[in-house]
Amino acid sequence: MAVEPERGIPLYLQLKRMIKTQIQEGRLTPGDRVPSERELSDQYGMSRMTARQALIELVREGLLYREQGRGTFVAVRKVSQGLLTVTSFTEDMHNRGVVPTSILLSLRSEIPTMPDRERLRLPLGQLMVRIRRLRLGDGRPMAIEEASLPQDVVQGIDEYDLTRGSLYAYLKSRNIELKGAHQTLEAILADEEQAALLAVPPGAPLLLLERLSYDQDAHPAEFVRAVYRGDRYQFYVELGH
Amino acid sequence: MAVEPERGIPLYLQLKRMIKTQIQEGRLTPGDRVPSERELSDQYGMSRMTARQALIELVREGLLYREQGRGTFVAVRKVSQGLLTVTSFTEDMHNRGVVPTSILLSLRSEIPTMPDRERLRLPLGQLMVRIRRLRLGDGRPMAIEEASLPQDVVQGIDEYDLTRGSLYAYLKSRNIELKGAHQTLEAILADEEQAALLAVPPGAPLLLLERLSYDQDAHPAEFVRAVYRGDRYQFYVELGH
Repeated sequence: MAVEPERGIPLYLQLKRMIKTQIQEGRLTPGDRVPSERELSDQYGMSRMTARQALIELVREGLLYREQGRGTFVAVRKVSQGLLTVTSFTEDMHNRGVVPTSILLSLRSEIPTMPDRERLRLPLGQLMVRIRRLRLGDGRPMAIEEASLPQDVVQGIDEYDLTRGSLYAYLKSRNIELKGAHQTLEAILADEEQAALLAVPPGAPLLLLERLSYDQDAHPAEFVRAVYRGDRYQFYVELGH
Repeated sequence: MAVEPERGIPLYLQLKRMIKTQIQEGRLTPGDRVPSERELSDQYGMSRMTARQALIELVREGLLYREQGRGTFVAVRKVSQGLLTVTSFTEDMHNRGVVPTSILLSLRSEIPTMPDRERLRLPLGQLMVRIRRLRLGDGRPMAIEEASLPQDVVQGIDEYDLTRGSLYAYLKSRNIELKGAHQTLEAILADEEQAALLAVPPGAPLLLLERLSYDQDAHPAEFVRAVYRGDRYQFYVELGH
């Protein structure tokens, strides 16, 4: 491998890109150790500070991870989730051979705000249930998910085991099938609370997914706001051809 | 408005969320001035440092922007782009009444790398053309787009005005219609070069879109890697119901 000096592009950035390319092209694979700062600086005649900056940023972006005293390694590839079906996290993880679990952060009845009322088309006086869960795959934090539903849809939800069961399976058992949805995706930075829950540094990249799902009668059944670890998740869309 | 103290959640974060909610609910709209650090600290009995931290982060996330000597204001809403059609940036901006322009950063023939060859199914010896453009809407940087195409598909592309015309319109003129695509979306942080081109601070959130498009014969015609400003862009998907 060679860092070819390019005009106007800082050396650390060139090193970063070279390592990224090697990961994309499969020359470095998950679990591989990458050279240390000292090795990189010897190999390319760059300062250790330059090599360090490249490694630090790749760790921050989630492509590499450090193990105290052992070195720096290539992280596992991102989970890729389809956007064209209203997927249940639980089901989705099962399909990948990953064990899904959840930590229930909060479950409460609330008086809906005006936008909540409009989104879910709630009549005046109807309460809303908000369920906030930390979603894990094989015990590793993947996402924070907040689902808001009309209270009459989820009567008795507090007796259902939301740490292991799927909310969608629960809805199905109540004859509610999610048939359509409007989803948006954005890139945001983790704030302190999100960072602590997801075990990433504040300022790490997150994917913010918002979804309004409709039941078989085209009535809004659920509004979800979820943030996914940017280093562990990607979304994909397949267009017919 | 009121900041209700919540246990365990830092005060600046509560202030941040309150301002975000007001924007989401339309109580603060684009162009509105938000209270200054001093006004916020007087109003809520918090330190100016606390108010400053909330405002700084909201500026960094792109929800607010500062004007020297005038104050802090609510930024314009994000552009929302559909993921279910292979859209041309040019066409898409036109549809919104925004004037699309581009700065051609580079256009060159390259020997494809192994992954490029596999993706585009290039026979050995075939060259690839890589087109890198900064895309602007009403003169403001929106995205950096890098498109790679088989060279025989884009003969004569260097005579076409890529700063104003659409690459897809050009392909159409050569009887190539993009009929399908595989797209992925990720959240990443801007590196120094991306930050400079997009006029954001390094570390700002970006959406990384990768798209492999197929022509009417189901042959790969184009591979695109584009980064969009996280504060100006969102993607959406509408699922039938």
